[in-house]
Amino acid sequence: MCEANVYLIDEKGEEKLFLESVDKILPEEENLILENIFGQRKIVKARIKEMELVNHRIVLQR
Amino acid sequence: MCEANVYLIDEKGEEKLFLESVDKILPEEENLILENIFGQRKIVKARIKEMELVNHRIVLQR
Repeated sequence: MCEANVYLIDEKGEEKLFLESVDKILPEEENLILENIFGQRKIVKARIKEMELVNHRIVLQR
Repeated sequence: MCEANVYLIDEKGEEKLFLESVDKILPEEENLILENIFGQRKIVKARIKEMELVNHRIVLQR
């Protein structure tokens, strides 16, 4: 499966796992709607900083 | 491998393949820098409309 782990950069500048095994990302105004393969959904006010799909890695920044 | 095909919505509202087998996406100001597993690089003034990683599908909109 080709889902990715989504990390959010916290106030200390460190990447923290925000949601694992994400399948869908839908930007909506200032938010990102994330949905993973287990049906979990999270909405976060952030933007995509970088994506490395082969490494299953997406980094978000507030 | 878990790269995705990137489609760009054209002026007719149709999705056209823009770059296949994309590994990395780096948003930079108004642009997206895309890099695929073959080392091809494309820069496009667009934003991400939706992503479906399990389907290897990312759609961009200008």
